[in-house]
Amino acid sequence: MPSDKEFEKLKPITVESLDEILGQPFKVLDDGFVRVVDYMGSDQSIVQAARVSYGAGTKKVSQDRGLIRYLMRHHHSTPFEMCEIKLHVRVPMDAWRQWIRHRTANVNEYSTRYSIAIDQAVKTKSDEWRFQATSNKQGSEGFLESSEGNILSVEEEKLHKNIWDIYNNRIEKGVAREQARKDLPLSTYTEAYWKIDLHNLLHFLRLRMDKHAQLEIRNYAKTIGNEIVKRWVPMAWEAFEDYRMNSKSFSGSEMNLLTLISNSENEKAVDLAKEIGWVKYKDSKINSHLERKEFEEKLELLNLSKPW
Amino acid sequence: MPSDKEFEKLKPITVESLDEILGQPFKVLDDGFVRVVDYMGSDQSIVQAARVSYGAGTKKVSQDRGLIRYLMRHHHSTPFEMCEIKLHVRVPMDAWRQWIRHRTANVNEYSTRYSIAIDQAVKTKSDEWRFQATSNKQGSEGFLESSEGNILSVEEEKLHKNIWDIYNNRIEKGVAREQARKDLPLSTYTEAYWKIDLHNLLHFLRLRMDKHAQLEIRNYAKTIGNEIVKRWVPMAWEAFEDYRMNSKSFSGSEMNLLTLISNSENEKAVDLAKEIGWVKYKDSKINSHLERKEFEEKLELLNLSKPW
Amino acid sequence: MPSDKEFEKLKPITVESLDEILGQPFKVLDDGFVRVVDYMGSDQSIVQAARVSYGAGTKKVSQDRGLIRYLMRHHHSTPFEMCEIKLHVRVPMDAWRQWIRHRTANVNEYSTRYSIAIDQAVKTKSDEWRFQATSNKQGSEGFLESSEGNILSVEEEKLHKNIWDIYNNRIEKGVAREQARKDLPLSTYTEAYWKIDLHNLLHFLRLRMDKHAQLEIRNYAKTIGNEIVKRWVPMAWEAFEDYRMNSKSFSGSEMNLLTLISNSENEKAVDLAKEIGWVKYKDSKINSHLERKEFEEKLELLNLSKPW
Amino acid sequence: MPSDKEFEKLKPITVESLDEILGQPFKVLDDGFVRVVDYMGSDQSIVQAARVSYGAGTKKVSQDRGLIRYLMRHHHSTPFEMCEIKLHVRVPMDAWRQWIRHRTANVNEYSTRYSIAIDQAVKTKSDEWRFQATSNKQGSEGFLESSEGNILSVEEEKLHKNIWDIYNNRIEKGVAREQARKDLPLSTYTEAYWKIDLHNLLHFLRLRMDKHAQLEIRNYAKTIGNEIVKRWVPMAWEAFEDYRMNSKSFSGSEMNLLTLISNSENEKAVDLAKEIGWVKYKDSKINSHLERKEFEEKLELLNLSKPW
Repeated sequence: MPSDKEFEKLKPITVESLDEILGQPFKVLDDGFVRVVDYMGSDQSIVQAARVSYGAGTKKVSQDRGLIRYLMRHHHSTPFEMCEIKLHVRVPMDAWRQWIRHRTANVNEYSTRYSIAIDQAVKTKSDEWRFQATSNKQGSEGFLESSEGNILSVEEEKLHKNIWDIYNNRIEKGVAREQARKDLPLSTYTEAYWKIDLHNLLHFLRLRMDKHAQLEIRNYAKTIGNEIVKRWVPMAWEAFEDYRMNSKSFSGSEMNLLTLISNSENEKAVDLAKEIGWVKYKDSKINSHLERKEFEEKLELLNLSKPW
Repeated sequence: MPSDKEFEKLKPITVESLDEILGQPFKVLDDGFVRVVDYMGSDQSIVQAARVSYGAGTKKVSQDRGLIRYLMRHHHSTPFEMCEIKLHVRVPMDAWRQWIRHRTANVNEYSTRYSIAIDQAVKTKSDEWRFQATSNKQGSEGFLESSEGNILSVEEEKLHKNIWDIYNNRIEKGVAREQARKDLPLSTYTEAYWKIDLHNLLHFLRLRMDKHAQLEIRNYAKTIGNEIVKRWVPMAWEAFEDYRMNSKSFSGSEMNLLTLISNSENEKAVDLAKEIGWVKYKDSKINSHLERKEFEEKLELLNLSKPW
Repeated sequence: MPSDKEFEKLKPITVESLDEILGQPFKVLDDGFVRVVDYMGSDQSIVQAARVSYGAGTKKVSQDRGLIRYLMRHHHSTPFEMCEIKLHVRVPMDAWRQWIRHRTANVNEYSTRYSIAIDQAVKTKSDEWRFQATSNKQGSEGFLESSEGNILSVEEEKLHKNIWDIYNNRIEKGVAREQARKDLPLSTYTEAYWKIDLHNLLHFLRLRMDKHAQLEIRNYAKTIGNEIVKRWVPMAWEAFEDYRMNSKSFSGSEMNLLTLISNSENEKAVDLAKEIGWVKYKDSKINSHLERKEFEEKLELLNLSKPW
Repeated sequence: MPSDKEFEKLKPITVESLDEILGQPFKVLDDGFVRVVDYMGSDQSIVQAARVSYGAGTKKVSQDRGLIRYLMRHHHSTPFEMCEIKLHVRVPMDAWRQWIRHRTANVNEYSTRYSIAIDQAVKTKSDEWRFQATSNKQGSEGFLESSEGNILSVEEEKLHKNIWDIYNNRIEKGVAREQARKDLPLSTYTEAYWKIDLHNLLHFLRLRMDKHAQLEIRNYAKTIGNEIVKRWVPMAWEAFEDYRMNSKSFSGSEMNLLTLISNSENEKAVDLAKEIGWVKYKDSKINSHLERKEFEEKLELLNLSKPW
């Protein structure tokens, strides 16, 4: 922060690599897209905001990366809020329902009260029908046989035609648009301007790029992350990948167990696991236990064997 | 605010008239409802919070109404934020899409990724099909003939049956719930817990009880207002009706015009209206002008004639 | 909203009249300032966002002003959220305490834990000491005699010197900055980056440009409004002045009374005022009544006489 | 979620162990306190909200703890938002400045525009003056000698007397309260009602119970956590301690290093650390590197030796 008030004139901060793709749609799903309409700030804005706190003069550029990593690592979120981006997106409404749950964004959505609905829903191809996951109550895994899928796809196409015939018929009969739309399918496309600051965008991406997120919104999140944010704020993106996407968290209990296991004190580890209720044997078969299972997955990542 | 710290013990604040209906569903639409699950605070909490600012001791109960009216009139919103309510609602998804745009609430919604979708969409009866409004691009007005409506209702019933057959078939074939649901109609019911503070709830009600709001969500808003909020915080509700629902706002230009008209200076009023571009004559016919029209509606409420 | 996806490339939206003052400090109080560091959007962005709802093609530029006025008049706030601005401000902490109560902004403030406090508090000149308002419990009105004020100013200068001597002495003795600062005066200057969208900025300005706001923060608000927002989004600013700053609201009761008075039905007006408890006579003296008084002020604006 | 709508009547959820301390002040610092004024919800409300998503009937109580732990572990934050608490606090303004930065709470603060300021600032005793930390630019560590501290405390007491004499003199002379207060010290006490949901309260506690938080606000946070939240929602509190307070996060790079070290591949670990720039030798002395140092602290917790 300057000690006097003889400030130089400023120019708006721009990012060349993002300017190159401004307005350009990135395709997602069969008919959706994401494109940048406007933005504000850069990696430099994060650094600048953080340095307000220090009251310090100009620092070496070479230290910017370290500072951004420090901020990300220690959850100092406010400097990331100094960057803002506005996207124009085309998304099926069922994915949009999940999207809009993030309350910190500004939104202007296409209105099917004012206008005729977009005449397009996501069409599922014969090899895109996903099985219900068995391990994960909310997810999907693997695909139906293409021959079986084909039956569903044909059936869907017919259904869509039927629905839009009915919709158009209602409109022709004079029914209000706000009511005529009521039987459009959930996967009908909508469009919106969506504006959000970088901190909240990264939070959105963390949740929606995750393997537990539904495939459709995950595709949007990946496109936003890899095609847009990475170009916009490369240092923040690198720190985000390292400290959020690729990081692992160990609870207090897990730290205690890991200390024993990584020091080859396997018996003590088993005792502790029993004590906290993670390990029980019945007829020499071990119980199933969700927290233990998640811990075992992390042990595997560390190339350590489970001691029970 | 007490000058010493010998505080008395407290009991949770309760409102008898609200306790009487706790958990009881109020029916909305053909299969929806709203019911209170929990709440916190009362008219007294608003008064208590406002008086923190004054550092004053206990005041007469008779002044509470005046204080609440003062706060509402002057947009002192924070005392109203001290009250909180949690509702359990069952709403068609197209109304829920509008509902959820209010970002200040806490929400837990029924998930059709985890569970089979609710097997129910809003059914429109033969006398409930609304015409597109002509005066208002986003609204509806009047109803189709029942005989015409009947055709649409029969068609809709058939469509719903078809859609749920397809949904159930997909589920049987093992398709993931998150994908099988994609062609359910927008008016499929969902359920949610919805928790919000009184200030933001009143803002929601102001927008959604308005005649410009879509009929469906307006019915929910009216039920929440008249059946629930009125019982919960009767003084705040009265002030809300007087200062928000039944109030009229006059812009700077409108105040200038109203001054002239209510003082019978009609010629001057016409001159002013011309000057600010609200009145133009062509071939002795007056132009159409939206702001002027809205002002004329307020003149009519005041039983004053327009001077042009 | 375009019907196909052959979007043209975009350039960031810039506003020439704002670019001219980018980085330039506007002085406020004896040592404070406000300056624009970065921004995003313009009047055009508001229009663009609003038109998403209509799904319409390009409209005539001449209609933009009308659209922006319509949005402001009907409290369609989301299009205004599409504009964002980042300011660098230097503000005394007692004004900053009020400022920061607006929760919708992003903030990075100078930290007196990391750095030595800014060696400057607001100095009140001999003719700037304000009297406690009598009509308004929270305000001020008029000024002390300059000779009396001079005594206070000299006393203050001595106090400030004493406080900073003590602060510097603590720092020299090795006391932590976070603790050494505890006795600095509330009017010590702080600095911050403050980023907010246009809708919330206008809400801030409406409250803080108001005559009830404390003089110090009011000066900041006026500078932001008249020097910055007016240059940035001139159409939105004009609508804001007309529909927010210069508008008057009449409650349901006030509309009823105004109808009678502007139609010269004074007796009926008095009866109604008695009925709703606004007018009571005792010994032929009228009571004092806050709501009635506020209404009388609006009557005066309309050049109408009160009938009681 | 019930399949029919024959809901039973409800009673407000209460928590006996919290009701016992309702209204009772817990002392913090020399003259501050925290007390619960009202609350809504319990551990049961978290479970209830989470189960909306499953559409499931009543589950065994024994599974509630596991569900709450699952939600906390996987950052499913919305169920925790269903609980709300309102506190009455008395806090020095410099701590309140930090407190109020958490934007998700509802606040009504004592106004020194309306009322005479609270005649009390934090008094630092002779053995409470803390040294500036050397390792941590923003913190403190250790205490000044009591004899040195005594000088500072006496000086402070004199200063406080002087300041309040000046404040009272201004008030007597008729200076407006809003201006007279300008030279009160930052550590003057203020009071407020502060209302927040459990999710955001836990976020506040995580940051403010942390050793990097300033001692003063840390004392408030610990009191709120250990005396209030623990009584209110014991299951959520246990999960919070295990997964937030006592957990450790390892970045992608750290996981790679830990895998090698815990598998006794020390040479490879050193190579990797060099490769990513964490380890450099100059004249056989290792460089200082902040990220590496933080990683070494975690290794120590795991009782593992650093390999470089």
